[in-house]
Amino acid sequence: MSTSSAGPGPHRVELDTAAAAPPSAAALEAWRSAGPDGWADARGLHATAATARRLLDAARAALAGAVGVAPEAVSLPPDHVRALHAAVLGCGPAGGAARAGAPVVVSAVEHSAVHHAAAWAAARDGAPVRQVGVDHLGHVDLAALAEASAGARLVCVQHANVEIGTVQDLPAVHAVCRAAGVPLLVDAGASLGHVPVPADWDVLVGSPRAWGSVAGVGLLALRPGVRWRAHEPGEAGASRRPGEQPGTVDVPAALAAAVSLQQVLAGPLGRADPRHGLIEQVRAAVRAVPDTVVVGDPEARLPHVLTMSALFVPGEELVRGLDAEGFSVASGSACTADTLRPSHVLAAVGALTHGNVRLGLPRGVPAAEVDRFCAVLPGVVAWLRRELGADGL
Amino acid sequence: MSTSSAGPGPHRVELDTAAAAPPSAAALEAWRSAGPDGWADARGLHATAATARRLLDAARAALAGAVGVAPEAVSLPPDHVRALHAAVLGCGPAGGAARAGAPVVVSAVEHSAVHHAAAWAAARDGAPVRQVGVDHLGHVDLAALAEASAGARLVCVQHANVEIGTVQDLPAVHAVCRAAGVPLLVDAGASLGHVPVPADWDVLVGSPRAWGSVAGVGLLALRPGVRWRAHEPGEAGASRRPGEQPGTVDVPAALAAAVSLQQVLAGPLGRADPRHGLIEQVRAAVRAVPDTVVVGDPEARLPHVLTMSALFVPGEELVRGLDAEGFSVASGSACTADTLRPSHVLAAVGALTHGNVRLGLPRGVPAAEVDRFCAVLPGVVAWLRRELGADGL
Repeated sequence: MSTSSAGPGPHRVELDTAAAAPPSAAALEAWRSAGPDGWADARGLHATAATARRLLDAARAALAGAVGVAPEAVSLPPDHVRALHAAVLGCGPAGGAARAGAPVVVSAVEHSAVHHAAAWAAARDGAPVRQVGVDHLGHVDLAALAEASAGARLVCVQHANVEIGTVQDLPAVHAVCRAAGVPLLVDAGASLGHVPVPADWDVLVGSPRAWGSVAGVGLLALRPGVRWRAHEPGEAGASRRPGEQPGTVDVPAALAAAVSLQQVLAGPLGRADPRHGLIEQVRAAVRAVPDTVVVGDPEARLPHVLTMSALFVPGEELVRGLDAEGFSVASGSACTADTLRPSHVLAAVGALTHGNVRLGLPRGVPAAEVDRFCAVLPGVVAWLRRELGADGL
Repeated sequence: MSTSSAGPGPHRVELDTAAAAPPSAAALEAWRSAGPDGWADARGLHATAATARRLLDAARAALAGAVGVAPEAVSLPPDHVRALHAAVLGCGPAGGAARAGAPVVVSAVEHSAVHHAAAWAAARDGAPVRQVGVDHLGHVDLAALAEASAGARLVCVQHANVEIGTVQDLPAVHAVCRAAGVPLLVDAGASLGHVPVPADWDVLVGSPRAWGSVAGVGLLALRPGVRWRAHEPGEAGASRRPGEQPGTVDVPAALAAAVSLQQVLAGPLGRADPRHGLIEQVRAAVRAVPDTVVVGDPEARLPHVLTMSALFVPGEELVRGLDAEGFSVASGSACTADTLRPSHVLAAVGALTHGNVRLGLPRGVPAAEVDRFCAVLPGVVAWLRRELGADGL
C-alpha cells in the first residue's frame, strides 16, 4: 500500500520510497514465519540452531541465485551502508595484484557511504581518492574513468542513482575496469528489484529496504577474482564473510529479504513496470511548471524515481507544502538547515538549486494519486513563489 | 515459551537462551505496531518521517530512562557485537586526558568481540592490550586491574559472564577506574534485564536479543566525561552517535527493545527471579554426577545461567545427547571441531575440559522441564562415558 496512518489530514500518499519502501506482505510473512527458531544462534549444535541455520542458508542461497553467484559469495551485513563500507574498505583484486595503498576510484554520484568509506580508506592507506565526474544527465565520464582506474584497488560506479534515477552503462564501465585489471563495485541499492539484475560487476551491494523488505540486513556479493581483507575487528579465519560478524546475522530479516526479492524479480521490471509510465506523466507535469527542470536521463532511468529542480522556491517549504496536501516527498536542496543535506548528486550534474524535490513511487501506487500530485504541484510551487519570493531562499 | 517447533522428536525445551532468547510477546507486538511508519527514514520532512522519528525518539528515551542516562547519550548500533566494537575502538576520557595511543585494559573473561576490538585497537594505536586475569570463580583481580589501568584509555570489565554467570564487583572495579582517571566500559549484554541495572559504569553496552527482544539493534550508552572518536567511516559532525550510521537504525527493532526492556525490568530480577532457584536445583543435580563441576560463583551470579565441566566425556556428544532428549544446550569445550570454539572464559578460570555444557534458562521455563533435565543428565553423562570412554575425547 502507498498509504500510511500518519495522523489526521488529507489522505497520505508515500512518494518517498526510493531508499526505504514500506515492507511488502511477502516480506512481513517471511519475517514472521522465521520467528519460531530464527532467533537462535545458527552456530549451535542443537535442533533449534539447526533450523535457524537452515533458514539462513536458504536465504543466502535464494539471494545468491537471484544475483547470479554461489551462496558462499553472499554475505549479509546489517544494512546497505555497512555493506558499502565493507566493500570499499576491504575489496581488491585477488592475488594481491594491487600494490599496498592503491587508491579507490569513485564516481561523483555514488552514495554518501561510498564517499565516506573511500575517504576513510584514503586516510588509512595514504592514497587519495580518485573521483570521476559525470555529465549533465549523470552518466560517468568513461575516458576519465579509464585514466583514473590505472593502478587502482577498486572502482565504484553505482547501477542507478537513488535521487535522479539515471542508470549507468555498466557493460562499458565494466569493460574499462577489466582492461585496467581493477574490480568493479556496483552499488545496486537503488536499482535491485526495480530493473533487471545487472551482470557487469565484481562486487555487488543491494538494499533490501529499498526493494520492500524489512530492516535488518544488507546484501553484499563478491565474484571470484575479488579478495576481501578485514576492515573491522573480528575472528580470524577463512570462514569469515565480508561485512558479517559471526552470530549476529538477523535471520528473520535475511529470510524476508530473500523471499521479497524473489517476488519482485518475478514481476514487471524497468520499462515494463507500471511506474515507468507514471513517472513519465510526472515529468510532463513538471515541464509545464515555469523555471523547473527534471533532472537525470529521461530514458536510461529507474522506473520509479524522479528529481525536479525549481528556481525561486525553497525546497524545505516545497516539501512541507506537498506534505500538507498529503504527499510524502524528499528534498536535496542547497540549504544549510540541519535536516537538509545538500545533494552532492545534484551538485555533480549541475542541477543543485534551492528547490529540489525527489519522488520514489512505491509499487502499486494508484494512478489517481499520481494524477492528484500532478494537479497539485503547480499550485504549490506558484503559491510558494508568490508568498515567499526571494525572501524564502 | 521455552518450546519451539524444531521438528519431530521429544518435546523441545530451549535451555540455550543466554545470548539470544526467543522474542517475547511484548517485543513482537511493539515491532508490529511500529510497522505502518517505522520503515521510513526518520530524517525526512514529511508526516511519515515525523512518525518514524517520534517512534525512534521514544525508544531512545525509554532505553535511556531504563539505564539512567539522557536520551542523547544512547545510541543504537545494529547489534551487541558492533556496540562493543564502537565502545572499545572509540571511547576514552573526555578532554583528551589519555595520550595518543594509550592502551586498553580487558579482563580475561570479556566477550570475544571485546578481545577482537582491543586487538584491532592495539594494532591501530601501537599500544599492546593489557589483559587482567580472574580467580577460579571468574572475579577480576582488582590489584592487577589497578596496576594495568594506569595511563590507559579504557577499562573493559563485564557486568556478568554469559557462560558461567559470575557477576563482577562493579562498585569496586569502578572505584579502581575512577582512581586511575580511566573510563569503565561495562558489557551488560548477558545481564541487562535479568539482574538490576548496574550504576557503576561510564560506558554501557546491552544486548536486546539476550533480554528477549528481536534482532536489529544493540544498545550503547555513554555517560558525561566519556568522549567517542569515530571508529568507522561516516558523516563528520557532532550529531553523529557512537556506533550509529545515520538513516540505518532499525526503528521497529528499537521500539521492540525499549518496550521489552521496560517489561522485564518491572518483573522479578536477580535472586527474586524464579530461575535463580531452578539453577540452584541444576547445580545440585550436577554435583551428584561424578567427576563434574559447576563453574562460576554460586552466589554472585546471573539467575538463569550455568556451565558445568565434565571429565571423561566429549562436549559435542554431550550436547547432541541432550538434544536427542529434546534439550537445547550449548557447549564451550576444548575441541578443535569446526563448530566448537574453545571457551576462553573456561580457560581463564581453569575449568576448560572436553565436556562443557552451558545452560541459559528462558523466562517462564516450566519447573517440570528443569526437573526432567536434572533427571536425564546423569544418565546421558554415564552412557557417554561408557560408550565412548577415552576414545571419544
